[in-house]
This record gives sequence, C-alpha cells and structure tokens, in this order.
Amino acid sequence: MNHLDTVGRYTFLAEPFHCDFSGRLFLSHLGNHLLNAADFHAHERGFSMTVLQPMHKTWVLSRLAIEMNEIPLAYDKFEVETWIEQTMKWFTYRNFSVLGKGGKVYGYGRSVWALIDTDTRQPTDILAFDDGRVKRSTDVKYLCPIDAVSRVKMTDNIQRWHTLVTTYSDVDMNGHINSVKYIEHLLNLWSMTFHAIHSIKRIDVAYVAEAYGGDTLHFDVETLGELTYAVRIIRQAKGQSTEQEVCRCKVQFAETLRPKKQ
Amino acid sequence: MNHLDTVGRYTFLAEPFHCDFSGRLFLSHLGNHLLNAADFHAHERGFSMTVLQPMHKTWVLSRLAIEMNEIPLAYDKFEVETWIEQTMKWFTYRNFSVLGKGGKVYGYGRSVWALIDTDTRQPTDILAFDDGRVKRSTDVKYLCPIDAVSRVKMTDNIQRWHTLVTTYSDVDMNGHINSVKYIEHLLNLWSMTFHAIHSIKRIDVAYVAEAYGGDTLHFDVETLGELTYAVRIIRQAKGQSTEQEVCRCKVQFAETLRPKKQ
Repeated sequence: MNHLDTVGRYTFLAEPFHCDFSGRLFLSHLGNHLLNAADFHAHERGFSMTVLQPMHKTWVLSRLAIEMNEIPLAYDKFEVETWIEQTMKWFTYRNFSVLGKGGKVYGYGRSVWALIDTDTRQPTDILAFDDGRVKRSTDVKYLCPIDAVSRVKMTDNIQRWHTLVTTYSDVDMNGHINSVKYIEHLLNLWSMTFHAIHSIKRIDVAYVAEAYGGDTLHFDVETLGELTYAVRIIRQAKGQSTEQEVCRCKVQFAETLRPKKQ
Repeated sequence: MNHLDTVGRYTFLAEPFHCDFSGRLFLSHLGNHLLNAADFHAHERGFSMTVLQPMHKTWVLSRLAIEMNEIPLAYDKFEVETWIEQTMKWFTYRNFSVLGKGGKVYGYGRSVWALIDTDTRQPTDILAFDDGRVKRSTDVKYLCPIDAVSRVKMTDNIQRWHTLVTTYSDVDMNGHINSVKYIEHLLNLWSMTFHAIHSIKRIDVAYVAEAYGGDTLHFDVETLGELTYAVRIIRQAKGQSTEQEVCRCKVQFAETLRPKKQ
C-alpha cells in the first residue's frame, strides 16, 4: 500500500494568540487543528462533512485521545499527519501525528468516529458508504505508537468541582456544544498556578451524548493519582433537573519547568 | 507611494469549527485573524512582537472597531488587508479590509496601538523607534471607509447583566486577558435565540486596563437603542472588592434572516 494515498499531511502555525501564558499552544486549539486535518483528509477522499451534508449524514466524534511529548510554541510551524487505521461497520479509527522540523515528534492522537444519519441520529453502515470508499482509504500498516483511547472508569468517590452555563460561543455548526470546547472548559478547572508548573501529558475523551447552548454543565472530578484525574461532564437542560452524562475524560499532567519569559 | 510596500495581504480560511451554529465565522475568531494579520504585517517590516521582545517593548492594542456587511461562512477563503494609516508619537492607527472572492467586501476594521516598555509599562516614542521604521511603513493614501473608533459614553442607566471568573484559557502570552476573549465573553451576553435572528453589524472596543487570570469580570450594560448596547467590563481582582474598568464596548446588531441549514 502506498501511504501517500492514505495519509494526509497538513501544515499549521501555532498562532501567537492561540498560545497560553507560557507561550505554548492551547491544547484545545491543537485539538481543533486535528479535527480540521481530519476534515481536510476526508474531503480529499470524498467523504468530508460538506460531501455528507446533502446526503443527510455526518461524522460524529466518539472518542479522542491526545498524547504529547512537547507542545508547539508560539510561531512554531508543525504538520499534522492523519490516516484511518481501521474501518468497521459502525466506527472508523483515525490517528494523528503532530510533527515538527527535523523529525521532531510533538505527539500523537487517536480518535473514533461514527457516521450518523442526521435525520434519525442513528449510526449508518460505514463499510457500505459509497461502495467502500472509506475502507479503501484505510491504512492498517501505518502505526500510531500511543495506547488506544482508554475507557475511563469512575467510582462514587467524586467531587463536583465546577458548574457553568453554556453560551453562544460554545456551540458549533452542528448545533451542539463543540467537542473541543469541552477540553477548553475541562482544562480551566485547574488554576493558573497549577498550569504554570504542569503541562498536559495525555487527555482521553469519550463523547457520550450531545449538549446544547444554554445547558448547564457540571464537572465531577475523581482524583486517580497524583497528577491524573477522571472528569465526568454532566448536562442539565435549561429549566430541568434531570442530569445526563455527556462526556467522560481522563487527564494526565506532567510536572514541568516552564521556560521563563524573556 | 507604492501600496505594495505598505499594505499586507494575508489569506485565511473560515475553519468549520470556528463557525457559529448558523455557519458564520465567530467574530472573536475574525478578530483573532485581524490581530494575526497585524502581527504578520509588522513582522515583514521589522517591528513585530518577536522583534520587539528582546528590546523589552511590545505593542498594546488600545482600540479596535470591526464593521461587517457580511460574515464569512464555513470554508470561505478570505483575505485580510492591513496597513498603518497614521503614525504619531504615542499611537499608530492600523486599518483592515476583509475581502472575499470577486471583489466582495465582507467588512473593515480600525485599530489604535501603543508601543510600550515591558519593564515600566509606559508608552514609548513610536516615531523614534529604529530611526522611523514604523513611520516609513505608513500609508496615508490607502483609505478605510468606516467611521473612526468611537468613544463610548455611558450614563448611570446601566444594569449588571453578568459576572464571571476568568480562567486559564482567557490568558494569552502577554500574561493578561486576551483582547479577543473580551469580545467572545461580550457576545455571550446574548442568548442563542437572539443570535439566531441578529448578526453583529459593528463592534467598538476601547481597552482601558489589563485584567489577569482569576480576576472576576462584571458586564454592565446600557441599552442605547433598539439593537445598540454599550458595555462596560469591570475587573475585580481575586479576593479584593475594588472595581476597575478594563474595557468599554459598543455593539450594534442588525436583524437578519439567517440562511437555513440544509
């Protein structure tokens, strides 16, 4: 198999105003670049969201993991490689590499997607789509060295760390809370002081249900280890008391000595 | 004068996940593109933030106005033109055009910047910088057709619409609340229902003081007309009761019939 046919490679710039106070690209913006790369890759192969829209189909992100050795700094150019590792009836597994100059590897990503019918919101058969078009773009031989997206188990040993009401800027074109906005809100649970001496090593997110603008979100946290946390994000629709899990995450931080500002 | 020497032109894409639920680019992301264009333009002419940093100087945005006829839709490519219209001792006036295909004009922007000493936080003489480098890149003949950034007068007839605590994702590389994040928070004051039938016609922002991560922000609103609002953003430092104005804005909405989703 020729990897050129199956692997997409897209250049991004760590824009200065997409970087945090230490000059590192916000992980939420990096996540957004990964999703864009996925969309570009799918578009070039005839199964992007714009192609699917008139067919009343769309891709829904089910799981996402990002594991970083190093985070791009402001003005760094980097490339996101993306390819589909496996295509099954109900899910595709799409991987990502984040690469810098001279062979530098910033990190990797893994994701799981379903192809849903936008009228019924039910999953559709990916293998049957356009005579196997997605399957033909799959590359089992190109490997991603990080662990699979993990199932996050949680006990009752949780604490409600934060509650917020979602707003206009949380909602994307699909009409529900943007996948990457959950990561942004999640990382805001930790203080500036904490972020100053820790960087994000790995994040795993399982998207369970959709939330909408105006919904209240509760962030229930279980401490799994010294720098590892499980977070369950719970939705409460406007004016209702029923709580529903929308997303479950695991975040692993690493201690860092941040570069001093000049 | 040759406009090619003084006017920078940069291509951007309205990324799908930077668009709101109606498929239009979020104004905060557009604002970010304008600031990036300003930085690229300055970099090509030897006075960008990265050039200034070792000299312990930086640009500080003092005022910003954006006036739109039309907002780019998801996947639209557009160009941001930027040039400096006037350079004085303490301020430069920088303009923007947002242009589409076939001569389409999405809108315009105006901004005012000071050059400050990062040690003393005091403004420095822009005319004297590097033997008049900024002045030489100024183009008085290239015109911007929108009104100057307006001073927003407010009476006591205000209401406190909202209060929030700033977090990690609000703070940029400069160590304070990002200029564009104020616009994001500001537009979140209006509901999804309001945004569904209104678009932003013009926004004027005067940046008065800096706020920091962990600060509480209050949003005090005065209704100036049916679709025109003045908003004073007030900062309250963590654990303190003193209130300080950080930013004053005027927002003008227009009624729209949003394009229906397919």
